[in-house]
Parts: sequence; C-alpha cells; structure tokens
Amino acid sequence: MEEKYRVEHDFLGEKRIEKDAYYGIQTLRASENFNITHTSIALFPNFIKSLAKVKKACALTNYELGDLSDMQKNAIIQACNEIIDGKFHDQFIVDPIQGGAGTSTNMNANEVIANRALEILGKPRSAYDIIHPNNHVNMSQSTNDVYPTAIKITLYELIYKLKDSLRELRDSFDRKAVEFKDVLKMGRTQLQDAVPMTLGQEFKTYAVMIDEDIYRLREAQALLKELNLGATAIGTGINTKPEYRRKVINNLRDVTGVDYESAGDLIEATQDTGAFVHISGILKRVAIKISKICNDLRLLSSGPRAGFNEINLPKMQPGSSIMPGKVNPVIPEVVNQVAFEVIGADSTISIACEGGQLQLNVFEPIVAYKLFTSINIMRRSFETLAQKCVNGITANEDVCMENILNSVTLVTCLNPIIGYEKSSAIAKEALATNKRVYDIILEQKLFTKEELDELLHPKNMVSNYKS
Amino acid sequence: MEEKYRVEHDFLGEKRIEKDAYYGIQTLRASENFNITHTSIALFPNFIKSLAKVKKACALTNYELGDLSDMQKNAIIQACNEIIDGKFHDQFIVDPIQGGAGTSTNMNANEVIANRALEILGKPRSAYDIIHPNNHVNMSQSTNDVYPTAIKITLYELIYKLKDSLRELRDSFDRKAVEFKDVLKMGRTQLQDAVPMTLGQEFKTYAVMIDEDIYRLREAQALLKELNLGATAIGTGINTKPEYRRKVINNLRDVTGVDYESAGDLIEATQDTGAFVHISGILKRVAIKISKICNDLRLLSSGPRAGFNEINLPKMQPGSSIMPGKVNPVIPEVVNQVAFEVIGADSTISIACEGGQLQLNVFEPIVAYKLFTSINIMRRSFETLAQKCVNGITANEDVCMENILNSVTLVTCLNPIIGYEKSSAIAKEALATNKRVYDIILEQKLFTKEELDELLHPKNMVSNYKS
Amino acid sequence: MEEKYRVEHDFLGEKRIEKDAYYGIQTLRASENFNITHTSIALFPNFIKSLAKVKKACALTNYELGDLSDMQKNAIIQACNEIIDGKFHDQFIVDPIQGGAGTSTNMNANEVIANRALEILGKPRSAYDIIHPNNHVNMSQSTNDVYPTAIKITLYELIYKLKDSLRELRDSFDRKAVEFKDVLKMGRTQLQDAVPMTLGQEFKTYAVMIDEDIYRLREAQALLKELNLGATAIGTGINTKPEYRRKVINNLRDVTGVDYESAGDLIEATQDTGAFVHISGILKRVAIKISKICNDLRLLSSGPRAGFNEINLPKMQPGSSIMPGKVNPVIPEVVNQVAFEVIGADSTISIACEGGQLQLNVFEPIVAYKLFTSINIMRRSFETLAQKCVNGITANEDVCMENILNSVTLVTCLNPIIGYEKSSAIAKEALATNKRVYDIILEQKLFTKEELDELLHPKNMVSNYKS
Amino acid sequence: MEEKYRVEHDFLGEKRIEKDAYYGIQTLRASENFNITHTSIALFPNFIKSLAKVKKACALTNYELGDLSDMQKNAIIQACNEIIDGKFHDQFIVDPIQGGAGTSTNMNANEVIANRALEILGKPRSAYDIIHPNNHVNMSQSTNDVYPTAIKITLYELIYKLKDSLRELRDSFDRKAVEFKDVLKMGRTQLQDAVPMTLGQEFKTYAVMIDEDIYRLREAQALLKELNLGATAIGTGINTKPEYRRKVINNLRDVTGVDYESAGDLIEATQDTGAFVHISGILKRVAIKISKICNDLRLLSSGPRAGFNEINLPKMQPGSSIMPGKVNPVIPEVVNQVAFEVIGADSTISIACEGGQLQLNVFEPIVAYKLFTSINIMRRSFETLAQKCVNGITANEDVCMENILNSVTLVTCLNPIIGYEKSSAIAKEALATNKRVYDIILEQKLFTKEELDELLHPKNMVSNYKS
Repeated sequence: MEEKYRVEHDFLGEKRIEKDAYYGIQTLRASENFNITHTSIALFPNFIKSLAKVKKACALTNYELGDLSDMQKNAIIQACNEIIDGKFHDQFIVDPIQGGAGTSTNMNANEVIANRALEILGKPRSAYDIIHPNNHVNMSQSTNDVYPTAIKITLYELIYKLKDSLRELRDSFDRKAVEFKDVLKMGRTQLQDAVPMTLGQEFKTYAVMIDEDIYRLREAQALLKELNLGATAIGTGINTKPEYRRKVINNLRDVTGVDYESAGDLIEATQDTGAFVHISGILKRVAIKISKICNDLRLLSSGPRAGFNEINLPKMQPGSSIMPGKVNPVIPEVVNQVAFEVIGADSTISIACEGGQLQLNVFEPIVAYKLFTSINIMRRSFETLAQKCVNGITANEDVCMENILNSVTLVTCLNPIIGYEKSSAIAKEALATNKRVYDIILEQKLFTKEELDELLHPKNMVSNYKS
Repeated sequence: MEEKYRVEHDFLGEKRIEKDAYYGIQTLRASENFNITHTSIALFPNFIKSLAKVKKACALTNYELGDLSDMQKNAIIQACNEIIDGKFHDQFIVDPIQGGAGTSTNMNANEVIANRALEILGKPRSAYDIIHPNNHVNMSQSTNDVYPTAIKITLYELIYKLKDSLRELRDSFDRKAVEFKDVLKMGRTQLQDAVPMTLGQEFKTYAVMIDEDIYRLREAQALLKELNLGATAIGTGINTKPEYRRKVINNLRDVTGVDYESAGDLIEATQDTGAFVHISGILKRVAIKISKICNDLRLLSSGPRAGFNEINLPKMQPGSSIMPGKVNPVIPEVVNQVAFEVIGADSTISIACEGGQLQLNVFEPIVAYKLFTSINIMRRSFETLAQKCVNGITANEDVCMENILNSVTLVTCLNPIIGYEKSSAIAKEALATNKRVYDIILEQKLFTKEELDELLHPKNMVSNYKS
Repeated sequence: MEEKYRVEHDFLGEKRIEKDAYYGIQTLRASENFNITHTSIALFPNFIKSLAKVKKACALTNYELGDLSDMQKNAIIQACNEIIDGKFHDQFIVDPIQGGAGTSTNMNANEVIANRALEILGKPRSAYDIIHPNNHVNMSQSTNDVYPTAIKITLYELIYKLKDSLRELRDSFDRKAVEFKDVLKMGRTQLQDAVPMTLGQEFKTYAVMIDEDIYRLREAQALLKELNLGATAIGTGINTKPEYRRKVINNLRDVTGVDYESAGDLIEATQDTGAFVHISGILKRVAIKISKICNDLRLLSSGPRAGFNEINLPKMQPGSSIMPGKVNPVIPEVVNQVAFEVIGADSTISIACEGGQLQLNVFEPIVAYKLFTSINIMRRSFETLAQKCVNGITANEDVCMENILNSVTLVTCLNPIIGYEKSSAIAKEALATNKRVYDIILEQKLFTKEELDELLHPKNMVSNYKS
Repeated sequence: MEEKYRVEHDFLGEKRIEKDAYYGIQTLRASENFNITHTSIALFPNFIKSLAKVKKACALTNYELGDLSDMQKNAIIQACNEIIDGKFHDQFIVDPIQGGAGTSTNMNANEVIANRALEILGKPRSAYDIIHPNNHVNMSQSTNDVYPTAIKITLYELIYKLKDSLRELRDSFDRKAVEFKDVLKMGRTQLQDAVPMTLGQEFKTYAVMIDEDIYRLREAQALLKELNLGATAIGTGINTKPEYRRKVINNLRDVTGVDYESAGDLIEATQDTGAFVHISGILKRVAIKISKICNDLRLLSSGPRAGFNEINLPKMQPGSSIMPGKVNPVIPEVVNQVAFEVIGADSTISIACEGGQLQLNVFEPIVAYKLFTSINIMRRSFETLAQKCVNGITANEDVCMENILNSVTLVTCLNPIIGYEKSSAIAKEALATNKRVYDIILEQKLFTKEELDELLHPKNMVSNYKS
C-alpha cells in the first residue's frame, strides 16, 4: 500500500504532511494554528504572485552573488514563474489573519517554491538538502522585509485596477453631464430649495470629484514604491552581503517592471506602517465621496410620486413582494454599504498600525487583509455602479422644470430685471395662494410666455453654464 | 513688601506657588506639564464635586478607624462640603487631558482640600505637618481607586440628567404623535413610495425609540455602581486596614445617597475599563438613533417646493444672506453634528481602553474627558431639539394627502375591494397619463367621492391605526 | 437533446435559469447585480436555517388562518425542515453585501423553498401556480419583517456559541490562577514597578473580566428576542389578518424553542436598528478586553533575556527563518488582530445604522454580515487562545521572585515593620549600589534569611491573598 | 437713564442687543440657538483672522468693480485689519458646533465688521443703510464660499505651525540618535529578542519617521490652496459679476501672501469635502506614528527593576502618593491620549463628510472644529514631548549591553566566525545553565576578553552602522 503522507521536521518536532502537497511542515503548523476566516491568502491572487516575484528577484540576486548554484537558481525561478502564471495557488493555504507578522505566509511561499523546484529537478518532496525553503528560497531574506514588500507590490497593482474602475465611473458621469446639460433644475442646499442649476452640472460635479480622487490615488501609489527589501530581521541587513541590497531592488524592478526604490533608512522602513495608514486614508476618502454620490442618486430618484423624482435609475430587480411594481435603488445602496465597509476597515488598520512595537509591526497581516479586501470590493462595486446604474439614468425634465417654475427662487433670478419691489410682491402672492410663480408672472403680464421661456433657458439662468 | 509666593517641596525639588492658591506643588507641576486643551477639569463641576465626595467618605472612614483626629476630620470634611457646594472650583487647574492615570487630578483635589482645611483651622497654607495632602487627605487611597470612583459617580449623575433631556424630547414627539394622528401620508422604504401610514405614527416611532434608549441608559447606569474604592495601587488594598474597604463604601453611600457597591475582585476592577467602553457604546447608540431622527426631520421638511414638504420646522434664524426668505433646518443639523462627535468619541475611548496594560489603564483621563463631554453636549442638544424644533413642528396635511391620492400604492390598498384586475388597469392608466389615481377612480365611477373619501380615512387605510 | 435551462418571468422580463436550480429569477437577478464579496450568504449556515425557521412559522400560521391548503403547508414545511437540517444551502447564492434591505436574500429563500416544495409534490420547477415564492411562501410577509427576524434569530444562536467559547477561555485562566497562586511577582502600573501581587491574582483577573463579559452578552441577547414579524412593509401589518401577528410569534417560539416576543410598536421595530448597534457595542467591548489580555500575555512573555520573561507561552511554530530558535507569541497576536477587525466592524455598523431613512434601514445586509463575521471570528479565536496558548502557559517563578527581591518597593512592604527611616536608607543604598534590596537587608542583619523568606510569602505580601 | 440695548430686525422679527455689542441680531439668534460646547469660535484666533482676510479681499474686489464706495471700502478694510491684528475677537460669540453650514459664523463676522466700520465712520451701531452686514460686508459672497475658504486658510496656517513642532521633535530625536550612536542593544521583533542594533539607530528611526510625516503634511497643504471663493450659494456664482471670481482670488493672494487658486469647478468645490477628509487622514497618520513612538518610549523605560530599563525619561512629577519615589512616563502618556483624540476626530470627520447632500455639506462646522482642535492639541503635545521628555532622555548603557551579553542571539552574530556547530553548543549550554553567553564563550576560551569586546563593538555587530 502506498504511503499517503510524508514526514517533515523542525526544531519543535515532526509532522505528517500529505504526500503530494507542495507546502511543508511550517505551512501545516500555521494552518492548524490559525483557523479564523475559513479562507486563505489564495483569495488574493495578486498577492501570491507578488510573493513569487519577490522570491524570484531574491534568487536572481543570490545567484549573482554566488550563493545559489545554476541548478538551484533555475529551478527556483521556474517555480516562481509558474506561480506568477497562476499555478499552485491552491497550495497557499494559510489564513490571511495570522499571528507572527506574516511568517506563515512567507514560509508557505518558501515551502511551495522549494518543493516545486525539487519536482522540476526530478527530486522528491522535502529533499531540502538540495533546495531548502529557508536556506535557499529564503536566502538573504526575512519575513520582515519580504512580506511588506509583497504587500506593497500587490497594493500598487490593485490600485491600478481601482483607478481603472474609477475612470469608467467618471466617464459614465461625464456622458450624463453632456446628456443633461440643458435640463434646468433646482439646486439645493441643506435640502432646501436654493438657486437654479442644470442637471448636467450636477452630474459633472460627480465626474470632477472622481477625477480628483484618481489623482490622489496616483500620489498615494508613489508611497508604495519605497521598499525595505534587504532589511532582513530589523533593518540592519543582518545575513546579507553588502551588495545585496542594491542588486535585489534592481532585480525586482526587472521582474515587476515598476521602478521600486530602496528606502532611505531600512530600520525605519521595517517598522513603519505609515504608508499603509496613508493608503487606507485615501481609500476612505474615495469611499466617502462615492457614498455621498450614491446618497444623492437615491435622493434625486426618490418617489416616484412622493419624492424628488428628478431622475430615474435603471430598474434592476423587483423591489418588493408585497408592493408590486416597486423598484428600489439597489445599486447605489450596495455601493453605500461597500463604502461603510471601507470606512470600518480604516478603523481596523489605524488601531493595528498604532499597536506596532519597537522594530516591527506584528499586525501587518490584518492590515494587508483589510487593504486588499477594501480595494477589491470598491473596484467591483464601482464597475457595478457605472454599468448597472449610471449609464442607464434618465432625467424627468418636466419635474425638474416644474420645480423651477413653482419656486419662489425663480423670483430671485428675475430680480435684476423686474426689480426688488415687484419680486417681493410676486413671492408673497405665490406663498399665499400656493400658485406657481410662473403663472403669476404671466397673469400679471410682466412678460409674454415666449419672453419668459427664453429667460428660463439655462444659458440665462445659470451663470457659468457651458453649452 | 509682602511676599507674593510661598514655596513647597517634593522629592524632585521645590517650586514657588502663588501665596493664596489652595493648590500646591504637585498641581503646579501638572499644570506646567500638561498644557493641551487650554481648559481645566473645572469644566466639569460634577466631577470636582464627586472627587470631594470620595475624599469626604474616605476621611470619615479613616476617622472611624482612628487614623485621623477630630480636628483633622472636621476640617477636611468642611473643605469637602464647600467644594460639593460649588466653591473653590477655580482652584482645579489641571488639564483634563493629562498623563499619569489621573494622579494630577487626585493631587489637585488633595492639595486644595488640605490647604482649605488648614485655612479653616486658622493655619497657613502648606502647613502640611498638620494636614498633609498625601498623608491625611489621601490616606488609605491611591489615584488608582479614587480617580475611577469619582469618574463613575460623575457619570452616574450626568446620565440622570441625560435621561431627563431624553424624556423631554420623547414627550415632545409624543405630543406631536397625538396632534398628527389623523394626518394620512405615504410611508417610504428605501426613499421609494411604499404604503400609507399616519404622520402621528411616524412621530410616535421617535417617541418609542427614545423611550427604549432611556431604558438602556438605566441599565448601563447599574454598571457604574460597582466601585474599586479601597483597592489602592493595584487592587491588593495595600496601605489599608482590613475593615476599610467595607466601611468606605458605606460612607460613600451615605455621602452620595446612591447604593454603590464594592467590586467583587478589586484587582480586576482597578485595571478593567469595560464599564467605560460599555457606557460609550450606549451613548453612541443613543446618538445614532437621534441622528437618524434628525435626518428624517430634515428630509420630511425638505423643499418647500422642490422637496418632501410634509412638515414645517419652526424658523429659528435666516438661512442665507443671498437667498432672502430661505430658512434652514439648523436645529436638527446641529444635533446631527453632536451625534457625529459622540461617535468619534467612542473611537477614542475604544482605542484608549484597548491600550491599557497590566494592572492599570493609564489612559483613563481621556476616557473621562470624552465621556463627560459627550453626555454634556448630548443633553444640551436634546433639550434644544425638543424646545426649539420638535415642539413647533406643523404638518402640511394637504401635501401629505396629495401624495396618497397621487400614488399608485393607493390602488394596492383598494385591491381587496375592487379586485386585482381593475387595480392593475387603474395603475397602468395613472402611470401612462400622469393623472392622480384618485381622479381616475372617480372618473370611472368606481366610488362616489363620499365613499372614496371615507375609504381614505386613516382608520380604513392603516391597519393598526389607533384613534 | 435535453434542455439545460428553464425560463422564469417577472415584471421586468424573463431569464433563463439552470434547469435543476432550486432558486429562481429573482435570485438570479440578484446574483448578477451584486458581485461584491465573491462569497454568498451560505457562508453563514445558521442564517440560512433561521430563514427557514421563519418561513416555517409563517406557513404554519397561514395554514391555521385558512390561507394555505394542507398540501401547500406540508410541502413548504418539509422543504423548510430540510433546509434546517442543512440541505440545499448551496442554493443560497446571493452576496451577503447586497442592495435592497435583504429582498434578495428573502427571495432566494422563497424561491428555493417553493421549488423544493414543488419537487416534494412531484411537480416541476417553476410551477408557481401551485406553490408561488411570493404568494405562498412569502404570504403575510415582507422582507422588512422576515429579514431582520432571521438576523436576530441567528445572532441569538451565534452569541450562545460565543459565550461557550468565552466560558472555555475563562476556565483556562481560572485553572492557571489556581496553578500560579503562590507565585509572587511585581505588580505594575504605567509599566513601572508598583507593589507585589501573585501571578495567580493576575490570571484570576482575566477570568473575572471574561466572566463579566459573558454576563453582558447574556443581557444583550435579551434585546434580540423582540421581533417585528407581522409588521410586513413598514410596520402597519398591511396584507396580514388581525390574528396573524400573535399567532406567528407563537409558532416561531415552537419552531425555535426560544421565547421570542412581538415588539410593542411594529413601525418603530421595523426601522430601528438600535439592537444591532447595541450588540455590536457589546462585541466591541469583549474584543477590547480580550485584546488587552493578549497585550499583557505578550508583554509578560517578552524576552526571553531582554524582556519581562515572567511567563512562557507554548511554542506553536518557529518564529523566524533567520533567527533559529526564536518563537513568537503568535496566538495572542492573531487574537489581537481579530479584535481590531471587530472594532472596525463596529464603525461600519455605526455608520450603516445612522444612515437609515424613514420607515426602513436599507443597510441591514452589511450590518448582518459584519455581526455574523465578528462573532464567528471571535469564537474561533477565543477557542484557539484557550487551547493553543493559555492552557500551556508556564511561570518563570525565579524571574518573578527575583524582580521582587530586586525591587525598591520591597522596602515599602517592610515599612510597617522596620520603620520609615530604615526603609529609606535601604532604598537609597539599593539605588546607589545597584544591589538587590534582599541582600542589603540580610547584610544589615535586619532579619535572618528564614525570617525574611517567611515575610516574603504571598500570604504576608499580598493583603487579599487567598490560598 | 441711558438705554442698555439697541434693537435690530430681520424677516423673523426683532431682538434687543446690548448697546455696545459689535455683533447684531443674527449673531444673537445663533448664540441662543446653539448652546452646545460652552465655547465660541474665538477659541481659534487664526480662524477669526482668516474670516477677516476673506472679507477684506472681497471688499477690495467689490470696490474695484465699483460696487462699494471709497468710504465703505476704507471702513470695512480698517475693521478687517483690526480683527487681523487680534482685536474684537471677544465679539465672535457663536458656538463652533452650529447648524446651518457656517451661516452663523459668517454673519457674526459680517455684523462685527459692519458695526466696527460704522464706528470708524463715526456712525452708530446698526446704521446698516450706510454699511450693511449682508449688502456690503457680505457683497458677492455666500456662507457657502466664504466659510470653507476661511477654514482652508486657517488650516494652511495651522499646519505650518504643526510642522514646526514636528521639526522640533525630529531634531530632538536626531540629537539623541547621535548621543546614543555607540550604545549597543538588543533589537526586538514581536517583543522577543531579535538581533543587535544601536540605541542611536532606534532613535534615528523616530527622526526619520517624523521627517516623512512633515513631507506628507506639506503635500496635504497643497490641497488647501484650491478655493471656491466666488462660488456663492451653490457654485454657479449667482450674484457676482463675471470678473469677480478672478479678481477676488488675486486680492486674497495679496492679503494672505499665499498663492491660492480658484478651483476648476466651483459647483464641485462647493459641495466637496474631500480635502478635509484627506487632511484628517494625514493628521491621523501623524498621530498614529507619534503614538507608536510614545508606546516604545514607555516600553524602553519600563522598570526600573522589573522592566526593560534601557532608557530613563526625565522625571517630571511624583507618580504616586502611595509609592514614594515612583515616577511615571507622564509625557508620552499624555501624547498617546492626544493621538487617540485625533483618531476619534477622524471618525467624526468621516461621518460628517459622508453625510453631505447635494450642493452643500451642511456639517462643515463640526469638521472645522475637529480639525482645528486636532492640530492645536497635536502641536502643543509635540512641543511638550520634545522639551519635557526626549531632550532629557538618558541611556542605561550597562543594561543595554548586558542584554546583548546575556542573549542567545549573540551566538547568531558570532556564527560566521566560530561556526554553526560551536554556536549551537553554546546556545544550548546557555539555555540549560542560565549563564551569560558572554561568560561561556570566555570560559571555553574561544576568544580572549579583548578579542570578544572588540567583536562586540557596534561597528562589528551592526552591519549598516554609521559612526
């Protein structure tokens, strides 16, 4: 009968591991120790790939410095390349929420790469005298520099995708801004009728907001380029050769195609989580603004009869089993909830970063987990918002115009033409009789209908109107 | 020429103190060390009084145990009574945000009481051989039991006042619920027209919500009755006589009139800030609900022409220099902001309580500062909301009814009477022609106007309507 | 060739559904609309079961009121029972983060139950004239009462399990408190040496803390017993018979075995999320306290040479690839991170609950998602903490005692015996010479070694020491 | 008998105002409506001055456009200049937490400036036909552009001061880094002994961290330069002349000396609070990092006997009445608490910014209040930390070195010289016998004492050591 298990050892003892598993004893210990989320780090494929990219850059460097043989280097690099191509991700089994500042994640990568490299060389699993997870795959490295480096590479890539989704959303709003450029409507401050604007201006605002956020994300990405790779345990670079630090960053640039840099002070860079707090703050900023936009969309589409009813959102699904025909603004609603999740994640990240002690912040795993999750759910929800909501919005032009014709603020706009005394009298009559201001003006023959309608054209009502 | 200063010593050296000041060297050091908020603990008179109540109970106990003379006891107690009566609060000069787990606040109290007691005895300031801030006023005590005890007594009293303000607000909503009991209106879910209800039911809801919050606050107050007085430094009761612990709680009961109890495990009680986190959570709960109510009030009063316009809030102040006649919902707006402040305070308190280490939480000063502030601003804003807003709210009955007559959901309610087929046809016509559902029904002579109006009475439209 | 799909219709159109799927068109729409977390509500089996329990109670009630036939009732109830037994959970495919206040979740349940009931009756999928998801399974219900009811039932059950995990953890600490009852050590305030205590007292503190939290959770559970079932859309009970409300709660009691009650005001109960904010606040309280305990464990086990080194945590996994033999406190570290996640979840829940408008809080899905997740990860991490850390903690008695013998505070304890003058002199010499206080006392022959060791027995050093 | 009051009117009625008060009816209404914090906006002198700067720039512009007479312009500008010089701040009496999006603050400024301008012209208070708070002082303005503009100017200036305090703190750490450059000590990860470093490196880290934060604050300041002045009510510039927008920014540049710019889209700029969320995020980042540093300082100075005891903080005040001689790390403790306050303020600001609706965020007052407060208390606490703590820190070199000599990691460093086998044997003996590693090495005569001490020089132990 064939054996189902192999046995590995470490200084705490030995464990049986499934014969074909690429991971080893330390991964297994970690997966037993941390059973929190019932998911694994494989939930984030970009992260697994980033780990492999770092390992690849390190192997290249160790080879250049004469510390790995051709055979070892080639096997390790092929294993890394395969992981970068999306293979073996099911072997990354440790929980994203884990104790130990990422040691388990790093060891999971070391063990999978080592065993796959051994397989490439035609060797059995666990033949670590040939390629060892620690001595060879992790050579010149420590979790404390590899792990945050892989997190930053991942964030850099995920933010690229997030910006793409924001661009799509911005463009959706921009198209609507053009479409609605002649729809005159009441502007509101503090939910009270204020002065006229166009619905196009209202939607343009959202495009401008989002555009600014894209710019802020780009700035924040720059902070991710500063890496502590080469710092090893605490930043003093113990266990590395002098040339290693410079070479490994150069190799990482080649592997990733991004111009990463070595941090100025590696001891500082190893313990500092400022960049993560910063990124989280920017993500929260984006979330807050998109949430505000969704609140507005829900408000503007409220009704249909007993609400603002200025716009119609596309009908995505029946909204009630009990009130046939009711349709709810479900897409903005789900985006709001994503925003709330991101705001909460920022609290988690803040407290985790504050809790770091001395030469290392041991809570980086939860920080990475929350950042990756926040970006992923934001991206998906922004695409949803653009495609399933904004693109299909239509305007209720009549309702928008009726609010203007109805409104006392119409008088304010005619003030310069008909004078303050006349204006006040009309306003007073409108409030007393509940009549439309428009009708009173016509009744009093202050203008002909044609003249008044001309005055009510956006180009005359909205000073910085652009056709 | 008379001296303006006196000199006091401690083991770090000596300092000049204003001759007439009741506080001494330790208070002065603290006020120099902590210059953060530019306010002092005297901002919270209840807290100063609570400190004096604790000191009084301790002095009584030390006297009963034979450790203070008649003369010392009488002088200390008179000084405490005067502080309880509101005197000498200007002598409490230390910043509420201070390092040292409240030592500076405790020493401020010890020094003021000692020097006032000396004055009562006709002795000069600083004659500490007669009455010493530490040896006599602070006898059998430590900051670590006195300070949290005084915080809890203060919170207990402040929550009483907070409940009073909530009762006032609840009663305001209750009166409006009665006033608006026959005003039929559209109920809304997800800002979309749902099914009918009365405005009275809507306002009753707010009264019920607040009533439940009062109950939750009462429960939370119970947690404040468990005190660690007698614990001294870390809960082992070092420096106290065996009978002290029981006696001092009894004396504190007499002094305060509240049935405080000694915690079961004084070591636990000295380091645990669970009760503060708990209270903060309950305050946040109250804040969130009142904020939701204020959001609703702003929404229901939006317009007047381009909004919901179902209710009118009292006009408290002109709302715009540029749009004459505009009036904004300023009172709900300020209450919202108070709620946001309380929600933020809860974050501060959470992180402060998490940060406690081993036998003491050194961050109690910020916890107390935020709790006291939250309760004070909540109380003031709730009274404002009741008096300057809710009491003066009026209903726009016509608007409310028009929304019902207009609405497709009216058909839903008539469904059981006219049948599904007919209902659907009417709904379809209403949507196509934009006519009022009410008018279509009359046109089609399904009911006479009298019959239809009778059907539209709240008692027929709202199933659990109570007259 | 056999068809792979069937077709269903709703008022927005038609969709093809996999032939064997139990869910229907509305579930499918929802799963297409909400693609956020890449998980489904089936992540929470208790929640799926709670939905089925509610549906079962409703079906029983509708049957009793004569609105369902025997055949319909029996089939629906069998389908519900099967779901309660854990079957068909893979058919619950909608994203836990969804727009629409839970409509998609409710419709997913309605459709699965309807199609399974049809199957039981030997009918094809989608034969909704026989058993209709809305007209029969959802009869007398609305998402707005079913969904929060199922959430509360789920929370009630999950908190039971959470309390079990806390009891296990409390008992672990309690056993250590007994084991370490004679280990004298230095108590610390503000990280500075304070006065002696026993390690048993220190661990007992944690047991007491946790015990109090269990009690607070029990109190909070009571809030979950008040349900709005019968409220339907907004709390007016539209579409239900008068007897329904009372009967359905009675049936739910029978189905669940828990004494649930109907809320006093169903309109209030339908829009109010106070109970969820409250529960979240209590969970945060628990998280903060356990996090504080974990901080302490990490501090007390710091070292081994350059730290406190008073206790040893069990070695769970190698802690460094670069520093052989290094073992880290990974279990407390992961629990800390869980606590931070729960604290962040509370922020999310707060903002979601504040954002509710008028007759409904549309953000309940994110609230449920965060509460379920928080409780699950807390439970798992508390069990881990008990089993993989606390149970295996050992004391370094020598280190603990050495800190006492070394410490100037030892003199404080001997103060009552040797007098203040002598004490001060010894303290001064200790500080000047860096000698152990213990040795100086022996040198000066103030006590024999036997006498001094007797004085240093916990029973003499720690006033409220219990053997 | 002389009258004590004058009377003013607005469209809501009339009110009596103290005869000599510079403020008028709207300020008085506001101060009665908002009685929340028991403070006033005068708490922030920079803000009052910023309001006056904006008003001055507007008056200059209105004069240039021919809308104010020479006399009016001169009087208004003199009044503004006086306020900029610090006069009349006691006339700014409205509560910083106020409803109405800052209208009350703006009107307070308008009224004080108008009445002071009238006084300059020799006119009585309230002679508003000559200089009117709205028509003249507020000409071409709205609260909605003036208020956020003044907030941004204030923040710009306050952040300058904050950076100064950070520079002072950075320099303090830098000096200590030099002072401690030769003190070898144990580096720690996860509170466990790791590898050697110097105390100088540890302190240098803090300097580097702070330096980066200064840079991030500078970046954030740039966001404050984009203003919506000229937007008036909602951004359409209603009530302004076409040339006004450009001219008023130019005048504001002259008045402030800062190169402010007009936002690209004034409608967006009027409703968007992204810059405030952003600034708050950066402030939180700074707070978190300084809090982490303070945690470290408290940890490193823990003891003196039963703690790390590697450094001594200056003794600022006696730390206990019960334990004579105990001194606590009160300065880092107070800075921690300030950080927690800033973190909580960020929550408040987030929720306030999320809550903005449509063309305006009505919650700007609480946002401004929290930002101003956060910056002020951070600045004061950072100066305190530098002056009263860091500057006076001393090192316990012996303790630091003893930890190295004691530690098993010493072997790791000698590994390259004595070989892995020998290293392991020494480590094992050290653990078994509890002897110092240093002593075992000497006993085994692997090195002479001189050789070993040379090897232990920082230049040999810490790879990137810089002398």
